[in-house]
Amino acid sequence: MLPFLRRLRERLGPQGYADAADELAPWLTDWRGRVTGKALAMVSPASLEEVRFVVQAAAQEGVPLAPQGGNTSMVAGATPDADGRALLLSMRRMRKIRSVSGEDNALVAEAGVILSDVHDAAEAGDRFFPLSLAAKGSATVGGLVSTNAGGVQVLRYGTMRALTLGLETVLADGTVHHGLKPLRKDNRGYDLKHLLIGAEGTLGVVTAATLALVPRPVERVTAWAGLARLPAALALLRRMEAATGGQVSSFELLPQCGLDLVLAHLPAARSPLGGRHEWQVLIEADTARPGDPLAAIVQQALADALEAGEIADAVIAQSAAQAEAFWLLRESMSEAERREGPAAKHDVAVTVGDMPAFILQTTPEVEAAFPGARVLAFGHLGDGNVHFNVRPPLGDGGEWLGRHIDAINRFVHDAVTAMGGTLSAEHGIGVTKRDEFARLAAPGQLEWMRSIKQALDPKGIMNPGKLLPPCE
Amino acid sequence: MLPFLRRLRERLGPQGYADAADELAPWLTDWRGRVTGKALAMVSPASLEEVRFVVQAAAQEGVPLAPQGGNTSMVAGATPDADGRALLLSMRRMRKIRSVSGEDNALVAEAGVILSDVHDAAEAGDRFFPLSLAAKGSATVGGLVSTNAGGVQVLRYGTMRALTLGLETVLADGTVHHGLKPLRKDNRGYDLKHLLIGAEGTLGVVTAATLALVPRPVERVTAWAGLARLPAALALLRRMEAATGGQVSSFELLPQCGLDLVLAHLPAARSPLGGRHEWQVLIEADTARPGDPLAAIVQQALADALEAGEIADAVIAQSAAQAEAFWLLRESMSEAERREGPAAKHDVAVTVGDMPAFILQTTPEVEAAFPGARVLAFGHLGDGNVHFNVRPPLGDGGEWLGRHIDAINRFVHDAVTAMGGTLSAEHGIGVTKRDEFARLAAPGQLEWMRSIKQALDPKGIMNPGKLLPPCE
Repeated sequence: MLPFLRRLRERLGPQGYADAADELAPWLTDWRGRVTGKALAMVSPASLEEVRFVVQAAAQEGVPLAPQGGNTSMVAGATPDADGRALLLSMRRMRKIRSVSGEDNALVAEAGVILSDVHDAAEAGDRFFPLSLAAKGSATVGGLVSTNAGGVQVLRYGTMRALTLGLETVLADGTVHHGLKPLRKDNRGYDLKHLLIGAEGTLGVVTAATLALVPRPVERVTAWAGLARLPAALALLRRMEAATGGQVSSFELLPQCGLDLVLAHLPAARSPLGGRHEWQVLIEADTARPGDPLAAIVQQALADALEAGEIADAVIAQSAAQAEAFWLLRESMSEAERREGPAAKHDVAVTVGDMPAFILQTTPEVEAAFPGARVLAFGHLGDGNVHFNVRPPLGDGGEWLGRHIDAINRFVHDAVTAMGGTLSAEHGIGVTKRDEFARLAAPGQLEWMRSIKQALDPKGIMNPGKLLPPCE
Repeated sequence: MLPFLRRLRERLGPQGYADAADELAPWLTDWRGRVTGKALAMVSPASLEEVRFVVQAAAQEGVPLAPQGGNTSMVAGATPDADGRALLLSMRRMRKIRSVSGEDNALVAEAGVILSDVHDAAEAGDRFFPLSLAAKGSATVGGLVSTNAGGVQVLRYGTMRALTLGLETVLADGTVHHGLKPLRKDNRGYDLKHLLIGAEGTLGVVTAATLALVPRPVERVTAWAGLARLPAALALLRRMEAATGGQVSSFELLPQCGLDLVLAHLPAARSPLGGRHEWQVLIEADTARPGDPLAAIVQQALADALEAGEIADAVIAQSAAQAEAFWLLRESMSEAERREGPAAKHDVAVTVGDMPAFILQTTPEVEAAFPGARVLAFGHLGDGNVHFNVRPPLGDGGEWLGRHIDAINRFVHDAVTAMGGTLSAEHGIGVTKRDEFARLAAPGQLEWMRSIKQALDPKGIMNPGKLLPPCE
């Protein structure tokens, strides 16, 4: 055993150090199963001091660190490189919620706290933490911060960036940045917090975060509507916003063909609407005001939208159970699609106003360029974020996809870039989008990113291989 | 004339170039009149291309640039150094509003657009731009972004950072960063926009910004309350938030002694409440929902607060004119104080929950350390941002202050730092807070800031002397 590893084992103890192949194995492959790496060992520090010890030791030895939370990255951003030089730095033992403050509307959670535990702690403090996503039972605070996670309520409450009031971080040289105080105004120069958010662990290790809480909603109104045509979604969104006074929290788009997949996958589920509509939306508004007649307001707004010809039909969930059933349809999209077979998936975004045009233009272009390919586009219309997935022709499968996937990825990413959009809306870059990111980066962009990386991590030990391609 | 200056004059034309002393003079002293600099010349580019030309030329020659908008910096952040080596880069001719989009809830304004023109353009597009401050008739978009401006509605809508959806910037090497698309989700690595916001022009020149718009409020409810005691302000704030469902937009604190100053200064003004109360608050809630019974809700919440003993008295403005009269009292605080004589002013912040304790502890400490000194603390309680001003003893003036101001500044900044707060809440660092910032910086902070500065501006031409002290 290397003396360096022996020092780590001695300091971290048996719970904090593992190098047996079977203990490491579950954490060396990303959860989508696309990338497998190797590591010298897995270290699991349980305190800020232990993280600092690990980072300082790694910096001294020039050993790379691959930080990992719940291992739910969509882009293999938490999987160590295959060269086996790195330490896997698991943050899962840092799982304390340090405080919940109603006076400050803030909660301090360590990096390894699971998102659903944040939800519970906020609720116990009579507040609400408004970021949620499918992996909430596994994804951890450190990973959510480092990927600037999004989800289904960004429209009203913002991404993780908007909800992160402070960070405690160990920088690449072992310096600790103590920035947890939830100062609502603080103008002391460059904002390190915002540089670390979304940096995918390449500039430092987030050890804890102060998260913003909001008043707890006392009522949610959940509706389902069939659009008259896709571009009407924009008018409908702004109508709902105006009628409710800005309280629309989700505005999710699904095509009929996607709903059909879900209904086939969930035999007990029913379509919310009687008829078929090429495009459908799940709308949710919430209110934290006791006695707010929000349901009646949403109902009237939908009636007005029907009158205006924006929608062809709509229904409001009459119970919490029915609202959950609506959400289950939306949240089962990815799984139903996965069951049907493999697809080339794209987490892209354009502006909200451009989203209908992006879907309507790009779909036939892709289907023409790749004959038989079937596009399935759904997602967060209120954020301009579409999951634009391309499935093989009926009867074809992985083999067809294997031949075409690189070309399809380039085609979709070119289309979104041409519209001024982004090839990564909420999943980040990690490993699996790294080359496409580099190919489509704006002039100068890789250069200034590399300069910042070099400035904060001159030895290149923080999660190398992610986000930025290695220099040649 | 230097060949370099001749090239600039030829390219920018007579409107874009000035070097006569009388033309430069108004822009060489900061508006608080504390710092006067010199400049080779003033260049006033009118387009992105012209800004790029200036920056490239300056980079080639190694000539520093001091960007300036409305010259309303509170910390002399837009005043060139006294050595006279810099070009004053006026952004005031870049004053086009390029677009207003209801579909995207976004407005694109060039750097030189004045804040009140942003307000007007948003309103013309049936939307609202929710950042406002006293200098709104002069302050420009570029400066507001570069100082991450705050103001009186941050509690609900955030600072300039939260309201900036995109930036167009010329970096120090003349590269243009085209980032105006209002993508609500975009996770492509390090966020240059957030690094430039609040960087005080030391990393690049902001040429245009995409600003977030929100639904236009249809009603504002403005109230004035006398607190039973200062700490009750916190319970009152969270009560109002809960009752309105998070629609409190301003929560401003004033002491009775401050109100007395204002009333003496504005003979036609009246105190909103009959009695005297040591601490008073101006509360505003707004709603964008037609028909929202917000006034009744605020009234009931204030009645409940009276019942709970949080407040001793309260009144709701019965007309727009009365609401304006309330705001005039608050907004005249600085001017009334200025008329009374000089003071040592501190724009500091702690967490919202810590703000009463900060005022109650620090006031007697300062008055004990500087016998006769009179503290006047007021500000944005909802953001934890207090303007903590220390006035000379009655009968004393500038001479007393001249002897004590450095020690007072250190005393107040030490107190706020000990509580985990910030010595600059919303004004930035500029020149006048630079040394205190450096003195109280966290271990490692100046080093990582210098690394970032070096990475993005290796020649040190962007607004040198601001924010970071020169290396020795």
